[in-house]
Parts: sequence; C-alpha cells; structure tokens
Amino acid sequence: MKTRGIRLRLAQMEVIPADPAANTARMLDLIEAAKKDRVVLIAFPEMAIPGYLIGDMWEREAFLRDCQAAGEQIRKASKGILVVFGNVGVDWKRKNEDGRVRKYNACFVAHNKAFHGPSKGPYPFVIKTLLPNYREFDDSRHFCDVRKLAIEEGKKMEALIAPVSVNGLSLGCILCEDAWDMDYGVSPLTILGKHPLDLVLNISCSPFTLNKNHKRNQVFSRHAVTLKTPLAYVNNVGLQNNGKTVYTFDGASCVYDSHGNEVTDLAPFEDGVITFDLPTDKKAPFGRPVTLTEDGITEIYQALRYGTGKFMRLCGATKVAVGVSGGIDSAVVAALYGTLLKPENLLLVNMPSRFNSSTTIALSRTLAANLGCFYTELSIEAGVRLTAAQVDRLDIRSPDGRLRKSLKLTEFMKENVQARDRSARVLAAVASAFGGVFTCNGNKSETTVGYVTFYGDLAGYLATIADLWKWEVYALGHHLNDHVYRKTVIPDACFTLTPSAELSPAQAVDEGKGDPLHYPYHDRLFASWVEWWNRATPEDILTWFLAGTLESKIGYAGNLRSLFPTNAAFIADLERWWTLYQGMAVAKRIQAPPVLAVKRRAFGFDHREAQTKVWFGRRYEELKRKAME
Amino acid sequence: MKTRGIRLRLAQMEVIPADPAANTARMLDLIEAAKKDRVVLIAFPEMAIPGYLIGDMWEREAFLRDCQAAGEQIRKASKGILVVFGNVGVDWKRKNEDGRVRKYNACFVAHNKAFHGPSKGPYPFVIKTLLPNYREFDDSRHFCDVRKLAIEEGKKMEALIAPVSVNGLSLGCILCEDAWDMDYGVSPLTILGKHPLDLVLNISCSPFTLNKNHKRNQVFSRHAVTLKTPLAYVNNVGLQNNGKTVYTFDGASCVYDSHGNEVTDLAPFEDGVITFDLPTDKKAPFGRPVTLTEDGITEIYQALRYGTGKFMRLCGATKVAVGVSGGIDSAVVAALYGTLLKPENLLLVNMPSRFNSSTTIALSRTLAANLGCFYTELSIEAGVRLTAAQVDRLDIRSPDGRLRKSLKLTEFMKENVQARDRSARVLAAVASAFGGVFTCNGNKSETTVGYVTFYGDLAGYLATIADLWKWEVYALGHHLNDHVYRKTVIPDACFTLTPSAELSPAQAVDEGKGDPLHYPYHDRLFASWVEWWNRATPEDILTWFLAGTLESKIGYAGNLRSLFPTNAAFIADLERWWTLYQGMAVAKRIQAPPVLAVKRRAFGFDHREAQTKVWFGRRYEELKRKAME
Repeated sequence: MKTRGIRLRLAQMEVIPADPAANTARMLDLIEAAKKDRVVLIAFPEMAIPGYLIGDMWEREAFLRDCQAAGEQIRKASKGILVVFGNVGVDWKRKNEDGRVRKYNACFVAHNKAFHGPSKGPYPFVIKTLLPNYREFDDSRHFCDVRKLAIEEGKKMEALIAPVSVNGLSLGCILCEDAWDMDYGVSPLTILGKHPLDLVLNISCSPFTLNKNHKRNQVFSRHAVTLKTPLAYVNNVGLQNNGKTVYTFDGASCVYDSHGNEVTDLAPFEDGVITFDLPTDKKAPFGRPVTLTEDGITEIYQALRYGTGKFMRLCGATKVAVGVSGGIDSAVVAALYGTLLKPENLLLVNMPSRFNSSTTIALSRTLAANLGCFYTELSIEAGVRLTAAQVDRLDIRSPDGRLRKSLKLTEFMKENVQARDRSARVLAAVASAFGGVFTCNGNKSETTVGYVTFYGDLAGYLATIADLWKWEVYALGHHLNDHVYRKTVIPDACFTLTPSAELSPAQAVDEGKGDPLHYPYHDRLFASWVEWWNRATPEDILTWFLAGTLESKIGYAGNLRSLFPTNAAFIADLERWWTLYQGMAVAKRIQAPPVLAVKRRAFGFDHREAQTKVWFGRRYEELKRKAME
Repeated sequence: MKTRGIRLRLAQMEVIPADPAANTARMLDLIEAAKKDRVVLIAFPEMAIPGYLIGDMWEREAFLRDCQAAGEQIRKASKGILVVFGNVGVDWKRKNEDGRVRKYNACFVAHNKAFHGPSKGPYPFVIKTLLPNYREFDDSRHFCDVRKLAIEEGKKMEALIAPVSVNGLSLGCILCEDAWDMDYGVSPLTILGKHPLDLVLNISCSPFTLNKNHKRNQVFSRHAVTLKTPLAYVNNVGLQNNGKTVYTFDGASCVYDSHGNEVTDLAPFEDGVITFDLPTDKKAPFGRPVTLTEDGITEIYQALRYGTGKFMRLCGATKVAVGVSGGIDSAVVAALYGTLLKPENLLLVNMPSRFNSSTTIALSRTLAANLGCFYTELSIEAGVRLTAAQVDRLDIRSPDGRLRKSLKLTEFMKENVQARDRSARVLAAVASAFGGVFTCNGNKSETTVGYVTFYGDLAGYLATIADLWKWEVYALGHHLNDHVYRKTVIPDACFTLTPSAELSPAQAVDEGKGDPLHYPYHDRLFASWVEWWNRATPEDILTWFLAGTLESKIGYAGNLRSLFPTNAAFIADLERWWTLYQGMAVAKRIQAPPVLAVKRRAFGFDHREAQTKVWFGRRYEELKRKAME
C-alpha cells in the first residue's frame, strides 16, 4: 500500500449460526466474484464460518473439524487474493481450562493458498485478545485468552500481538472487542500501533443494540486517528440467539480514514458487499465526518422487523396468530407482523370474556380490517365457566376418606383462569389449526414485574416486543402508522385507551380503570433497575426521592410528590414492584418465550438472575426507617 | 502448629444466596460458639456472605457495600480467633473489564480484628486464581483473574499467590477450583507448595453432582500427599440457582492428613460444624483411607429430596398438586413429595380422557391410597370437546369478507389440546384453589427430545426429575419403595406398564402400545449426546454402529441390529431424535420450568444452546451415504 492503492471489499454477509457448509459456500462464491472484480483483499466477519452465538456447540469435536475443513477450503481458494475471515482456531494438542480441546476466537489471513499469522506467534492465525464476558457474551467459556497463552508460553503480550505481513502489506488484524479496549488492562491496538501498519481490520460479530453504532463510530474513528491508519470494520447481518435471547445483526460495516472520517454504502441489515479503493497514501482523507445522531424508534423498528422475519424463518413459521385485545401491545405486534406477512397468513383472534368492553372488541375488529387479514372472535366465557364449574367447590378427599376438603377459586384465581384459557386453550389450538404459531405480546414493563399470567399471556413462540418499555410500544405504534403504513392501521383509540388486562370489573377500560402501573413513572423506574450500566437499587431510588431529585435522575416528566403524597405511599409502591421484579417475575421469565433483543439488558441471557429471597439492602432499610418516622 | 496442635472448625453452614444479613448473623453466632469451644481457626465456605449463584446481583454496588460491611462485622468479631471466610473482594478504585467496579472471588483471613493477605499481594485477602467458566459457572463474568492482575501489576504469579502468615501459622488458602488444577496453565497449589505450609484450606461453594465427591477425594488427597500437609475442605449446604437450573449443595466437608487419608463427621446436606484437633506434627497420620465407591440412586434421592424441599421453601410453596397418570414418572414425583409433605398438603390429580385406560386410573388411585394424601379425578373430556367444538371447523375471515377459511384440528393437534387442557386449564386452576403449586414430571429422556407439549406436560413450578433418564426414574421408584417407605407405595404395575402418553388409540397401554422411545437404548444414546464430557455427535454414533461397537460404547445391553434390521432404519431413528434434540426440543427447553440438577449437564445453564438449523456434519453425511448404498 505504500506504493499503490488497494481494492478492499468488506463482505457484510448473513452468517447462519451452526451451518459451516452454507456459510463457506457463500464465502467461496464471494471470493470468486471478488477475484473477477480485481479485489486485493476481501474481509469477512468474525466467526463467519461457524457463527458465534451457538451455545455449547463448541464442545463437539466433529463440529470443530467441520469448521477447520471449511477454513481449508477458503485457504485453497485464496490464490491471487487476500482473504481475511473469522473462524474458530483449534489446537488439538493443547487443552482449554475445561479439559476440552484448545479453541481460539481467531482471524485467519489467507493468501496464495497459505495462512499467515503474526510472525512470532505460535499459530498461523490471529487470536482475539479481549474476550467479552458481560451482557450476552461468554467468550471465556469456550475460547482461550491471549493473556493466558502468554503466561503459558512464558512470553510477553507483545510477542503474540503483532501485525500480519503479507503480500507487501502490514495488516493490523483485530476481532470485535479488541477495539473496545477502554476498560481492559491490555490494548491490542496500542501494541499493534508500535509497528508500521498499512491497514487495521476489525472483523466483528456484533449484535444490533440501540445506539451502539454511534458509540462505535466515536471509538473506532478515534483509533484510526490515533494510529494514523485507515480502519476497516466488517460485521455480519442475520439473526443469532443463545436460546432465551435473540439478537439481530445489522452489519453497519464501514471504513474510517486516518482522520477518523467514514465511508460506507450499505444499509444496516443489508446482506451485501462494500468495495472501496483505499488511496495509496494512507494519510490521505477519503471519508465523510461521522454524524453522531442517536438511534430512535426507526432503528428499533428496523431491528424488530428484521429479527422477527428471520426468527420466523428459523422456526419454519409461515403463518402467525396474534391474540388481540384492543390494547396497544397486541395492536403493535399485529401491525408489525402485517409488514412481514401476506394478509392470508396473519390471523388476529379476539377472545373476550364478560369483562371485555365492546370498545376493545370493536378496536380489534377495526385493526384487522385495517390490516385486511384474517380475524375471528372467540369467547372464553364457556371455557372459563367450565373450569370454574369443575374446580370451584370441587370436593377432594383421600381414597380412605380420612381427608376431605372443598376447593374454592378466588376472584384473583379466576383472572388467571381467563388468561390461561385464552392462550393455552384457545389461541394455541387456533394457531395450530391455522398452521402457524402464536405470539407473546408482553412488553418490557410487564415482563420486569411479571404482570402476566403463566401459560396465559406469558405464552407464545417469541416475545416480540418484550425489550420495549410501554412508552416505546406507543412510539413504535405511531411509527408504524405514520412512517410504515402511512395510514391509520392501529386505531387512534388504542393509543388513548387506559391500558388494562380487562380481567375483572376493577379493570373496566370504559370507566378509565386498568393496570396498576403508572407507565410514565414506572417505565423510567424499571429502566433504572434493568438497563442502567450501574443498576439502581431501592437504596438509590429512595435516596433520590427523599432528595427530590428522582424525577430528573430517571427522566420522569411528572411530579412524584403529587403521585405519592406520603413517603409511606412511595415506599409501598417501590417495594411492591421491586419485590415482584426480584421475586415472582424471575420465575415467570424463566418460563417466558425467547425475547427479541434491541437494547442493552434484554431479559434472558443479557440479564442473568437467580430465584432468591428479595434483597433490599441494609442502607435502604435505614433510609426507610427514617423516611417513615 | 510446629509446636502445638490446632483446634480447627469447619462450618458447613447453609448459605442463603443474596442474603448477606442472614448469612453474617449466622457466622457471628458460629464464631462466638467457636471462641467458647477454644477453637483456634474457624473456616467458612466460599462466598459465605453473599452466596455464589446470584445471577448479576454482583453488578449492584449497594449489594457489594452490604457484603463489605458484613465482612467488617466478621473482622471485628475475630478477636482471639482466626476466621477464614469467603466473600466478594471489592477494589473501588479499579475497574473490571466490563467497566464496572473491580471484584474478586476472595478468601478473607481475619485475626484479632485485622485482615491478613499474602504479604506481597496488593490486597488484604486471597484471590481465587482459577475461575471456572464451564458447566453452570461464569466466574469470569464478574470476577477478575489473578493472571490478568499479574499482567496489570507487571508482577509474576508467584508474587500474588503466597501463604497467609498469621498467628504463627502459614496458611495456604485457596478457593474451590484452585485445587482442580489439572487442566489449567497455572497451579496455585504448586506455587504455594514452594513455601513452608502448616495447613492448606480450601473454601468452596461446590454443588452436588453425582460422583463428584469421589473424584474430589482422589484429587484432594493427592494434593495433601504431594504437599505433605493436611488439607481442610469446607463447603456449604443449601440451595442456589441461576434461574433455569437449580443446584443443591451437599457440604461433604472434611480434612485430609498429609498421607491423603480423610476425617469427616458430618452427613452430606447437613448443616453443622466439624471440629478437629490437628496434631502438632503436620506429618502425623490421623485420617482413614478414602473409600472410592461410586454414588448411586441413594445419593440422587438425597439430593432430589433435599433440593425439592429447599426449593419449595424458596418459592413459599407449602402445598403441592401432582398430575398423576398412572405412569412411573408422575408416581415417582408424587412419592418424592410424599416424603416432604404431610398427606393433607399433597394432592394427586388424575385427569383422564377417553384414551386413558382404567388400568392407569386405578394405579393413580392406588398410589394416592398408599400415600394417604388427597386425590381427585377430573376428566378433561368436556374441556377437550369444548375446544374442539370451538376451534375445529371454525370459519375465519377478514372483516371485509375477502378472505375466508375453515380451520381443522388434526388428530395430532388434538393430542396437544389434551395435554394443555390437563396442565394449563385444569391442573393450574386446581393447584391454585388447593393453595399450592403443581409439578412438572418430565424426565431427562423426554426433555432431551422434547417429547412433551408446550403449556401441557412441560408446565410446572419445578421440573423435579428432569435430570434423570428413564432408567434412573425406575431406579428411584424402587429406592423409594424399598428403602424410603419400605413398602409398596408406587404400585408394582407402574414399573412394568408400557410407558405411554395415552393421548390416542395408538398409545393404548393395555395393548402394550406407548411412547416411540425404546428407553433402554435411547436413554444411553441421549446420555452420550448430553452428558459425556466430549459429547458424541451423529458422526460418532453412526461410526460406532457401523463398526458394531455402539452397544458397548454407550452401554446398551441389547443388540441394535435386532432393533434396527437395516442401516436405513437405524439412521432414520438417529436423525429423528437428533433433529428433535437440536430443534424443537430447544424451543421447549427455553420455556421449561427450572430443572433440579443432580448430574453433569442438567438442562439449562449447564447445557447452553441456541435455536439453530440442525447440524449433522460433513463426515456424518459421507458415512450415511456409504451406509445407505
């Protein structure tokens, strides 16, 4: 690159997790196309061959052999072209600390049928140095750390982290987290920067998270400036999951010039390539300044729509039934599926009981009319009556007659009977007869405190909007009407109706009665518990409330003193929801469907939790004692 | 210890996860009692103050402050006594690699109101060196590794790993995994062994796993011999979980003499202390030879009973409803609860449909009679008929009338309707009216391949026997009759009946029809996929089958060629179950109740998995092609 330009291609391909054959076939096609286009270097994402979020598949040696064989195919295809790609690096002679074979999260550089690694390193590949073990990441579970390798080899880190010299180029190859070095004791880029570098390549498998791209722009453009070297970033698209939590990958691949400006020409979530001629002079500017606008509901919509479509295909689901209540949550879910499915593959089912108002039934029908899809109403009255008749006042006894007892369903139990009748009896059967799956429509606010019934509204094949607070559900609804459909698909009244489960007279929407949550406050309160990096606890919340700063701390627009006239009222509310969040809601989340993640701390693998006694903390107890005096 | 004996006490206490106040109060009581008994050194388990499996509680700074304050209470109580205990070690001035505050899994040594750490170390506590990141363990998610600290400090490992010298004693303090060093690049005990040592102390928080104690006896006694030093092991009892998987802790604390012989006097799962006068001469023998019998069904029963009882208390459940089918699984679950609950707190519910034989209904009644508990029969016929009437031949249409369609429930769908009617409609309502919870009775064989219905038999508050293969369920049933009840509580016919879901005429037990699984073979096949450390894959299975060695490899007593007359038949069976295990069963496990773990690779956190396309592997496809020729 010192004397000539370099035609660079970033392959923002869809990586299919646990399908090395399909990924490799795709890569071979892309390599052949790149050769025809006189591309000098084509770069693929991290773990492009195996996929990344594949649970404990790494423990299967036959799978590792498949991945290695696939890597060999890529090597053999590298005649006349530089191919950089992610794969698992296996050392069959060493062990990981779990006693299984040694594995690295590795970046391979192939050229003219040979692999090239750092000159003094023990392997013909580059090892990921910084292994993330937070959020949904478990890198240390499967992959060996360069620092442990350095101690094992009796070498300094600098001997293992070095550029790859190949075809006259000095490439600084890093993997994903390696560039996010601010909190690590080691900086691979600082070590690489001590060498002459023509190009830094970051290959990643980095899920979409609200506002991450903007953070990445800040971090990566600064690296390019510091190193005075262009930095190319290649990330995959597609869908990967670790069971409980489902992630979309938006790609967002790009190149930064040595001034920190950016070039990209692929939309997020788009499978395709970026081809770019890097100028001969590595200090020559070629990018546009990075704009740091924050993501909003548009990006959330993109990610949810993309992820839902991909997840349906993963499950083989082509038809979807949505239980619609007339409320905003189910309406938004239905409208979202309406963007993915033909009307004949979408079925909305309204399942009223005697507690459902004609208002919400009419709204459900209007929603279906606006979507033009299948619709049916199926009352749960008969089902609920049957269960009540069978169970309420049921006489149970021991066969010898010694024990006798009559059972009694309370009104609260009957609320749960209704919810289960809807999902597990009616909707599950209707969806199967329709030839499809049914959705879970719970939002993040409800999921946080388990305001949901086991085997009732908790059920479904995917919790499509369980990473959205209630206010975000409203915003998504408006986005769908205003910018996606460009007409009123979700009826206006869905936005203004009192949110209600309509399971009892106490939840009569037409009388303005409904959920016990005051969403404008509780959404923000729950976000401070769940989504903040340093997560707030009752101690923090009570401290701020007593100081009069809680509203500004959590971003609540109202006045809490008018919502809670006394300290006792505030504390009762706080304890009610914290107890549920840390108690029964944990049990419910354990049995919840997979959550489609769009933000930091989606429930599931990004928010690990145990069922324990509910902890408040000793300082909280002191504060409470004083506040109650 | 060179000139005098030392009175040692190991506190095998129950640690309550996420309850530092309760744990600390207990520890202070035990310290006071130890002082009265002239104990020189009292040792508590790893993470005795916070608990260990507490999800992401570690991210809450107020919780960390609680734990630190609790540690201070212990320090202040250490006048005149040596107290060794586990707690989180916090360095507020440094960061972990996730950007949160620096945390260590630490062993504290308190004496005369002061903490004592290794003399050249940066902290007044001992840091866990070997952090397990396999099975259910995620140590690197929250705790900093000594090796990373060594690189950060520019020090050798030897400077950080050293004995604690206190009160004239040289103590080699290690934490749990530190002694399981065979697969690690660093051995803390080898480094400690270069110093004079009076005693090695291993503080642990190590869950019960079938046969682990015997392995531990081998490993730890060898360490004591190698170091020529007595080694004391203290482990907690109690129950901890990480949401999806629930672990029991059996304690099994003991002391090894420098000849590798053992002294212990507490039963497993027993909350209590071991007090022991170590001889003045550290080489003096005092233990009995370690007996290496393997665990069996007795230990599984102990763990299941202990864990079930503790889990009930954690959930606040005092009454339990068990859906009993007359089959062995539900009978064993009912009999297990019968050992924990008074008859008036246990309710067995038989829910026949037209497909249930009078045989199994009678067996259910006999089981209840033998247990003397509540019993009822509640037919699901009316519920199933109602659902079929409402859904089968349901006309759905779009509100504008453009789309019209009639739905149809197939016989297979109606099987699922039955299963859901039982659990989500009837049993859930009955259990709530009874004032209790209901159990999930699925075994590990069914759970592996998802031979279970969503919101049907998959439901429940705890999957009590989901870590037991079918053959282990039978063994547990015999153990309950023969050694626990010492009479026939589970009717003999439950052991001989053809296992069947009784959901269709094709599953008529009285005609010897039932599950599509041939348990004696499939149990062993599934174990090779799930429980083997190097997990078998279709490639291995087919290779062994073709070589005629599969029976001996997996321990199947029969002849597979008589079960599968052709290669094609064998392959069809293999692919059927592997596809389910890696496919639909993953989706079902995501929504399954918590699993009570007793062995390696319980489902959930010890067996992480993603929903992906089902992988077979390229070598498997080749083998199959040849085998089918």
